[in-house]
Amino acid sequence: MIDLRSDTVTKPSLAMREAMHHAEVGDDVFGDDPTVNQLQRYAAEVVGKEAAIFVPSGTMGNLAALLAHAGRGQELLLGDESHIYHYEAGGASALGGLVFHPIPTNAQGELDLAALNAAVRPAYDAHAAQAGVVCLENSHNRCGGTVLSLEYLAKVRQWASSQGLSVHMDGARVFNAAVALGVPASAITQHVDSVQFCLSKGLGAPIGSLVAGSVEFIKKVHRWRKMLGGGMRQVGVVAAAGLIALNEGRERLIDDHVNAKMLAEALSQLPQIELDLASVQTNIIVFGLRDSSFTPEQLTERLRQVGVLIVPFKGRLRAVTHVDVNRDQCAEAARIIADVLQSA
Amino acid sequence: MIDLRSDTVTKPSLAMREAMHHAEVGDDVFGDDPTVNQLQRYAAEVVGKEAAIFVPSGTMGNLAALLAHAGRGQELLLGDESHIYHYEAGGASALGGLVFHPIPTNAQGELDLAALNAAVRPAYDAHAAQAGVVCLENSHNRCGGTVLSLEYLAKVRQWASSQGLSVHMDGARVFNAAVALGVPASAITQHVDSVQFCLSKGLGAPIGSLVAGSVEFIKKVHRWRKMLGGGMRQVGVVAAAGLIALNEGRERLIDDHVNAKMLAEALSQLPQIELDLASVQTNIIVFGLRDSSFTPEQLTERLRQVGVLIVPFKGRLRAVTHVDVNRDQCAEAARIIADVLQSA
Amino acid sequence: MIDLRSDTVTKPSLAMREAMHHAEVGDDVFGDDPTVNQLQRYAAEVVGKEAAIFVPSGTMGNLAALLAHAGRGQELLLGDESHIYHYEAGGASALGGLVFHPIPTNAQGELDLAALNAAVRPAYDAHAAQAGVVCLENSHNRCGGTVLSLEYLAKVRQWASSQGLSVHMDGARVFNAAVALGVPASAITQHVDSVQFCLSKGLGAPIGSLVAGSVEFIKKVHRWRKMLGGGMRQVGVVAAAGLIALNEGRERLIDDHVNAKMLAEALSQLPQIELDLASVQTNIIVFGLRDSSFTPEQLTERLRQVGVLIVPFKGRLRAVTHVDVNRDQCAEAARIIADVLQSA
Amino acid sequence: MIDLRSDTVTKPSLAMREAMHHAEVGDDVFGDDPTVNQLQRYAAEVVGKEAAIFVPSGTMGNLAALLAHAGRGQELLLGDESHIYHYEAGGASALGGLVFHPIPTNAQGELDLAALNAAVRPAYDAHAAQAGVVCLENSHNRCGGTVLSLEYLAKVRQWASSQGLSVHMDGARVFNAAVALGVPASAITQHVDSVQFCLSKGLGAPIGSLVAGSVEFIKKVHRWRKMLGGGMRQVGVVAAAGLIALNEGRERLIDDHVNAKMLAEALSQLPQIELDLASVQTNIIVFGLRDSSFTPEQLTERLRQVGVLIVPFKGRLRAVTHVDVNRDQCAEAARIIADVLQSA
Repeated sequence: MIDLRSDTVTKPSLAMREAMHHAEVGDDVFGDDPTVNQLQRYAAEVVGKEAAIFVPSGTMGNLAALLAHAGRGQELLLGDESHIYHYEAGGASALGGLVFHPIPTNAQGELDLAALNAAVRPAYDAHAAQAGVVCLENSHNRCGGTVLSLEYLAKVRQWASSQGLSVHMDGARVFNAAVALGVPASAITQHVDSVQFCLSKGLGAPIGSLVAGSVEFIKKVHRWRKMLGGGMRQVGVVAAAGLIALNEGRERLIDDHVNAKMLAEALSQLPQIELDLASVQTNIIVFGLRDSSFTPEQLTERLRQVGVLIVPFKGRLRAVTHVDVNRDQCAEAARIIADVLQSA
Repeated sequence: MIDLRSDTVTKPSLAMREAMHHAEVGDDVFGDDPTVNQLQRYAAEVVGKEAAIFVPSGTMGNLAALLAHAGRGQELLLGDESHIYHYEAGGASALGGLVFHPIPTNAQGELDLAALNAAVRPAYDAHAAQAGVVCLENSHNRCGGTVLSLEYLAKVRQWASSQGLSVHMDGARVFNAAVALGVPASAITQHVDSVQFCLSKGLGAPIGSLVAGSVEFIKKVHRWRKMLGGGMRQVGVVAAAGLIALNEGRERLIDDHVNAKMLAEALSQLPQIELDLASVQTNIIVFGLRDSSFTPEQLTERLRQVGVLIVPFKGRLRAVTHVDVNRDQCAEAARIIADVLQSA
Repeated sequence: MIDLRSDTVTKPSLAMREAMHHAEVGDDVFGDDPTVNQLQRYAAEVVGKEAAIFVPSGTMGNLAALLAHAGRGQELLLGDESHIYHYEAGGASALGGLVFHPIPTNAQGELDLAALNAAVRPAYDAHAAQAGVVCLENSHNRCGGTVLSLEYLAKVRQWASSQGLSVHMDGARVFNAAVALGVPASAITQHVDSVQFCLSKGLGAPIGSLVAGSVEFIKKVHRWRKMLGGGMRQVGVVAAAGLIALNEGRERLIDDHVNAKMLAEALSQLPQIELDLASVQTNIIVFGLRDSSFTPEQLTERLRQVGVLIVPFKGRLRAVTHVDVNRDQCAEAARIIADVLQSA
Repeated sequence: MIDLRSDTVTKPSLAMREAMHHAEVGDDVFGDDPTVNQLQRYAAEVVGKEAAIFVPSGTMGNLAALLAHAGRGQELLLGDESHIYHYEAGGASALGGLVFHPIPTNAQGELDLAALNAAVRPAYDAHAAQAGVVCLENSHNRCGGTVLSLEYLAKVRQWASSQGLSVHMDGARVFNAAVALGVPASAITQHVDSVQFCLSKGLGAPIGSLVAGSVEFIKKVHRWRKMLGGGMRQVGVVAAAGLIALNEGRERLIDDHVNAKMLAEALSQLPQIELDLASVQTNIIVFGLRDSSFTPEQLTERLRQVGVLIVPFKGRLRAVTHVDVNRDQCAEAARIIADVLQSA
């Protein structure tokens, strides 16, 4: 099987498994786990923040961060194509009483500044929920792994500051963005108050995400994590894999990007496929079907039968490259897809 | 002052004040108030539902209805221009843990059926909040008092049933819609599971709204009303005014519509005013300024100084006709507006 | 019928009905209602606070005040016999995400200070919800209308300040407490940050309560009131009755207390009745049945048949005196109860 | 260090580390992880339920279970000494809008049935929050590891059924209870609708808990787990350790109980220690200080300096035995404690 469903499917490397085997651990609820403490310090450093905290998933990282940023009844200004809006079960509203205020998202994953500005309702008006926090996503999953420019981030940062609003980044794949821009992640995250990033996507760890921000903020996140049930015990066993992922996995992402581009180029030459190469900026390829005898669901199923896994996605299809699919496999996947489409 | 800010500004008529004076009352928390009981029965009848319940405001009526329809974490599919989304402080999310899922709204106040359909996320997918209830607004305030056609309502009804979804109508001004269509209100409300309508807008009562639906549903609303703090004591004193409003106020709305049309026509002839006459379907007039030396806020202030009250509205301006502004005053308002714009 | 179910059953006096008839009104959502504005100023003055706000019910007054005092996830330290805990449908938790932390209540309605102190969980501990606000009830309904002493209030105030906690008083019947102590209400409310009191209980108005506190606090309450749906339009029609109630109803409460005492003394002499006269401090009488052939529910029903209304209450029975039951009627009620018990 | 702070401090055994090293894994968000699937099947079997689901912590397990059992505004009848009430940050109220209704707990950890019954408020009364779910804790942490009898459980089960209420068991240490009673865990859990138990306490795994119940119920829990952020990826790496814990750790708990009894007996002979041996039913020892020159906090600190870790607990002290403290170490701890107390 060539599994291109997501970069979440990567299995821990031998080095990670060794590290888990030998991890020094303690009870993290008492603050006693040296490995998770090391991971948290390192994570904070990598994204240029004062502190960081380990959480079992990106969903919890985003949720705890949003609860820490905004109170009951405040609005969450977020992209109408964002992962938080589509794939996190509405938790910020359902559990936290935050009010979703989705903002149109352009193809690059940007929220228009004028739209953001218009979304902030006047403070004197009791009819209107008050803005609490702004969310950006980078790289942007539903836009196909697109990357926010540093200029855009600086503008959002400046505007948000002028409004007294915090900015949270759902940076599940922020290192893909950094690699794509050729900058350290901290060049990106300097423009936000908090960032969540995943160890278990392109970086290859089996479990876990981190939230980073100021010391004061991370204390609040720690409290919400406890309430949500994200406080774990000898979490060093997974943090050990996370350390390797964070240390060694970041640079390697360039390979995924190169493979994605190669695969995208191959696919873009098939007449049945509609694919904007400009949108393939990281490790995600989103493409549509043109005059095809398949629906996205049918093609997904057909490809499964011949050894390639992809997923239907917004009426189109998505393939994601990662450490467990090498260049040859990507080329092979392109060939298989071509065969299937042409023999239909 | 000619007060065109809203039809909420109407003052109780002499008949209403007399009725309040002489109302037979009891403690409604014990179910003992005959006047509110009479109003509730009458209201249910007027909109063709089994039961109705009095609430202190339209906001509470909508909120209690939504809480009765949908549970924690379910989505509220509603128009992105709806009153609930813009002017009710996000209560359904903030207090009730419902997840806002705003749907684009066309100029007529309709939510596109395809967009509604796409908004229902698949039940098998734990990533996605599940749809709980659909909301329509009729007449539609932010669209300028536009009216949903019976055909459209029937289609939404049919689609919602096919999805197992309830439909709630924010019918704060549903009688304006009925008058505009020339049908009884029940011809409209037959297509929804529940409706909230206001006594204190065009109907002219000082206080109160009603929610109507099935007996079972109204029992639930009663419980949420209690929790929200909408259970009142000798509420018959205001229900008495409400009975007159509901009995005598509905037919009279035609006057407001005629006045609105007249005022709109006068305004539309001014070169500085941009106004689509087709949008003036009930008692609301929304217009923009063209090549004017005023911003909406400035014009509002200038008009206030010369005796006409209107409000800035979505970057434009809004005037609303009602029982306390007669035809002559509307004509006078048109003249004053013309003078102000031309002398600028 | 001699209706002793509650002081909420009082019907508006002729003067109140006249006042409602002639009230000067405006749209309070625009802040334009002079009568409610006058009531709010007067209410603030009476309880010695900077500002006050009208709400449709005591339940909403308490709820909006608690939401203004405490954020999502904070604890509400309140008496385990309090009205908020028993009769307000859990709204503070259900809608506001506050965490109930009930404290044992003594016969006088006091929460033990040591228990309050023990209930404040350490701030460093993420396992523990943090205290947000303390609630007192005065006079205390379920304790039988008992009154908190000024000394007790001063002690709670001091302790709460030392903990950085606000104190809210559910003073639905705070004027009964003031009359019982022979002090102005402000001598009581000086010890709390906010107070809710009802116009529609002993004071005799048909509808409404007020919340009073600092200007800053009342602004917050105003916002929550809007969200809850407590913003009303020409609310002056009921505020007019409220002004009379607040102006003329307070001193009159002494009559209710005298009547209650008389009725209680009569009842206490019946061998079938268990009644602690020391607990009858205001207008509420709670009594048990001893060796009686009736359950509380049966006696309630039997008395209803012969013209006296009381309610079963905590396994016992409750009678409440008020403006619509005069001294003779109280004496008559005592006779009827004696007859019924003795003829059983 | 002899670490008796909690049975959560245990470090993964070599066998567990080996298992983590070699675990077959997949992406559990796609349902692809064979190891966690195996663990879930096995867990369901062990507690005699249709299905089970892995969660990162006991706190999340309890929270997701409660959200699945009860809706917004329903009451949670739980012990006033329960872990959920004291140590889970009020999440069920704060996030889920459930209303805490704490019930007095006797020394054995039982909630009195009459008190439970009285806590169910009448369904017709809109003033009262409605009961949603009953929680029991077994073994009971704050009662000192006490065990609920099967007779008691059967009675609660029968009563709850008569009320139409579900029963959830916080069985974080349910296998300690089973060992103490000498019955399989399923003999206990047959009396409840759902149970949460921890792998990372006495069973010795580094991370994780399970919730078990009906297939339908576990589907709901799965949804809430996603929203809370408990969905993880290659979770087989920790599930592998969990399988060993669940398979091999249960019988071994008897050693902890024997050690606890031995330690308790030694401590009970010290004149400075107040300890009810009858309360030491599993692996938890709670004791007070009598005429001691130490406060619990001071003794904790002093013992830390000489190599024994315990925790202050409800004004007393708690020691917990577990796999990483053997019999000799327990004896040694007893000696050290005696020395410290006697040399003071």
